[in-house]
Amino acid sequence: MQQLSGLDNSFLLMEAGGQLGHVGSLSFFDTAGLEGRSFKDALRSTIEDRLHLLGPYRRRLVEVPLDLDRPFWIEDPDFDMDFHFRHIAVPSPGDDHQVSELVSRIHARALDRSKPLWELYVIEGLENGRVALYSKIHHCTIDGVSGAQMTQVLFDQDPGGDVIPLPEEPWQPDDIPRTSEMVARGIAGLVTQPGRIARTAYRTARELWESNEAATAVARTIGLDRLPLAGGIFRTNGPEVDADRIPQTPAPRTPFNRSITPHRRFCFFSMSLPRFKAVKRTIGVTLNDTVMAVSGAALRSYLGERGELPEDPLVAMIPVSVRSETEKNEYANRVTSILGELATDEADPIARVERIHRAMAKSKRMQQAMPATLLTDWTEVATPLILAQAARIAARTKILDRMNPPFNVIISNVPGPRQSLYCGGAEMQTYYPVSAVAEGQGLNITVISYKDRLDFGVIACRELVPDVWKFKDLFAEGLEELEKAAEARKTTNE
Amino acid sequence: MQQLSGLDNSFLLMEAGGQLGHVGSLSFFDTAGLEGRSFKDALRSTIEDRLHLLGPYRRRLVEVPLDLDRPFWIEDPDFDMDFHFRHIAVPSPGDDHQVSELVSRIHARALDRSKPLWELYVIEGLENGRVALYSKIHHCTIDGVSGAQMTQVLFDQDPGGDVIPLPEEPWQPDDIPRTSEMVARGIAGLVTQPGRIARTAYRTARELWESNEAATAVARTIGLDRLPLAGGIFRTNGPEVDADRIPQTPAPRTPFNRSITPHRRFCFFSMSLPRFKAVKRTIGVTLNDTVMAVSGAALRSYLGERGELPEDPLVAMIPVSVRSETEKNEYANRVTSILGELATDEADPIARVERIHRAMAKSKRMQQAMPATLLTDWTEVATPLILAQAARIAARTKILDRMNPPFNVIISNVPGPRQSLYCGGAEMQTYYPVSAVAEGQGLNITVISYKDRLDFGVIACRELVPDVWKFKDLFAEGLEELEKAAEARKTTNE
Repeated sequence: MQQLSGLDNSFLLMEAGGQLGHVGSLSFFDTAGLEGRSFKDALRSTIEDRLHLLGPYRRRLVEVPLDLDRPFWIEDPDFDMDFHFRHIAVPSPGDDHQVSELVSRIHARALDRSKPLWELYVIEGLENGRVALYSKIHHCTIDGVSGAQMTQVLFDQDPGGDVIPLPEEPWQPDDIPRTSEMVARGIAGLVTQPGRIARTAYRTARELWESNEAATAVARTIGLDRLPLAGGIFRTNGPEVDADRIPQTPAPRTPFNRSITPHRRFCFFSMSLPRFKAVKRTIGVTLNDTVMAVSGAALRSYLGERGELPEDPLVAMIPVSVRSETEKNEYANRVTSILGELATDEADPIARVERIHRAMAKSKRMQQAMPATLLTDWTEVATPLILAQAARIAARTKILDRMNPPFNVIISNVPGPRQSLYCGGAEMQTYYPVSAVAEGQGLNITVISYKDRLDFGVIACRELVPDVWKFKDLFAEGLEELEKAAEARKTTNE
Repeated sequence: MQQLSGLDNSFLLMEAGGQLGHVGSLSFFDTAGLEGRSFKDALRSTIEDRLHLLGPYRRRLVEVPLDLDRPFWIEDPDFDMDFHFRHIAVPSPGDDHQVSELVSRIHARALDRSKPLWELYVIEGLENGRVALYSKIHHCTIDGVSGAQMTQVLFDQDPGGDVIPLPEEPWQPDDIPRTSEMVARGIAGLVTQPGRIARTAYRTARELWESNEAATAVARTIGLDRLPLAGGIFRTNGPEVDADRIPQTPAPRTPFNRSITPHRRFCFFSMSLPRFKAVKRTIGVTLNDTVMAVSGAALRSYLGERGELPEDPLVAMIPVSVRSETEKNEYANRVTSILGELATDEADPIARVERIHRAMAKSKRMQQAMPATLLTDWTEVATPLILAQAARIAARTKILDRMNPPFNVIISNVPGPRQSLYCGGAEMQTYYPVSAVAEGQGLNITVISYKDRLDFGVIACRELVPDVWKFKDLFAEGLEELEKAAEARKTTNE
């Protein structure tokens, strides 16, 4: 049996209070290419033909009793396609807001852990002859990059349908292991635990020592000293580093950095990739810098309108893939993160994007100085029980309402397909990410590039950001403002 | 603050594993009477006008920390109509099976305990110019009879709209009590607990002694000796009764008397009330006897087709309202239950209904010999923590897969409105109950009488009864068989 990594498992453990560990996507298809066939039937038969390439669709968890150790994957002997593949509709007129309402509600519900951790909803009743597809899958089984890979398997690059290799051998479901077997595995894992913790603590201390500049970023990013068990060991066992002396410069408080509920609001919109690219070239920054600058502008306006813009700049957390070439086809999490300021205290758009650019360049240098595997090691050593308790305590005490957050917002930029994708001949028009929020982090901006568009999904806690649809216009205004400023500078320079 | 009764609270405590404590209804409306207005808008403004008569819609729970005592109700200061009132659709063709699929999925999800415990879904996209309404509310806040009362408040008896009295005083939301206050209340409750337990045990023993015939029914119905705490006290403290000597005759095992999942299947159909009444008159039994006989016939065929009909007759549990006249307008649980055999081992339909009739008459005599309040007293004395743990242990160990059940199926017969009800001029055509299943009880048959129809809702665990829609035809066949047999006997007697 394959065991979940500590990082994979952390997305299960985070499920307490209002936190949910799954992610999703919402895509719209043009039904013209179907030539009268049913999108639902086309998609279903496509999935059935490609199940052997979609590992997460048939594997399910077996948990270790009493949370003694991380769970394992087995091939589900009770796999039932009807449970996962669903058909639903929005009422007329079938516009974006009604789709958003439906997706928000479905996204607010945890997946059933006794089955493979995914659900697909074909959504009908849309205006303009479209059909939508909402896909939901647990973050413990894929990350952003492997999610994008699944999309490539699921859909065709050829409108007439791709040729898919047949399975090399027939699928073999597993038996569900008996409880006694899982307890034995848990105890075996526990016996080896103390050694693992000591080794990881020693290695972290050494790496920090060797790469001094990275210390702040690491401590702030992985919250090492705040882990109930690992934090203590780190402080006492690390021979050359005192974690308490690592400077903590938390992000300012905002209305969305509070304790969340399980309910969501979801706003989505599509923007022109060439427009972002033109701005980036004119100013001389990266594409990701411009995405962050436009996000920062939108957040600055949003908080300004509410009279709640903090004096200090907001801090964004940016997930970074650490997937190596050999891991390219693996369905698991290979991700770390860096922090970057959003310069929301700066009124001038050019000055803002340049500050963002400098901060990001510095964060990336630090991150590259750290071995990719180190950052995920800590999640391997604490037992699931301890981590789950920490998550539950945080949710129950609403501790995050009373302290400054380590960062304000996640901004995630996932590279998606550059060519059109099809299902049964129907072209996918847009491909919006539907990500997750967390305790103290009630707002998440994720963007997927698809063809010549950037498709944005802004997901929020329903209670903390009830007016999330404001971001659609605020992003449009943010890009226009940046374009105008870039144009003005170009004219001046010429 | 008003505190939940032990019985009300038991519907919260049952929520563990696959068990959910809410109930619902699915009603269909003819949109012709709307004269072009939107059903959704009409319903929403009706609710807003009548909120002062719909107590459960604005009250929410405050739980006592550490489950020290039963929760309390407060008027929710954060009440948000948008959260509860929802709008959705089924894909084309919009038939009963698609509605069933949607309702099953929504019904499979627990209500959020931090808000008032209800949700309403206006369902569009139906064939034949209809609109449907699925209503979901927690059983801790109403029982079948008070649910039917809410329906009377919500809908009009006059197609042109009823006259509703204005609120006598403006609504006053409460403050959410601080944790420390709730802990103090919990400890205060606990201190008085031992006395309450002793008094209840003494009273039960005395009542059992005085009404000897009732002993078996009581022990089997409320499972007194199986409660972890109360059972022990009962066995040692009861001066004149030894619970171990009360005969236990559990029901036979069936495929649906097993551990359940949280997922559901829902089958609904409407039958003619005059046909049931004609049969009852011919045979000389009650209306409820004929409902049970037709249910028994359907269950006999269903299990027979699967080759799993037990030799012993199935046992049904029938909820009985113990609401007094003075409690008539209260939103709370006033319900107990009796057991009755379904004579599924009997091939002859007349012999079957007569056995059911005799068994029910006997059960009712026993039940009437017991004071109505006694049966609910036991749920008042055990602390919620103990009851919740018992529910969780039952779910986790799947103990019910290894023992015979106390009964096989709940058959609930709720009297509904006799006249047509309207909303915004749209007539309610049918009114199906969507009830709950429980550990070891994967099938529930509930029927509401409405106008000249009996509207059946058969709710089941998705995994134990995947083919629940078979019951629609099996009930039709069961009624026909009984009608023919009654007709034949009438001819013979004449």
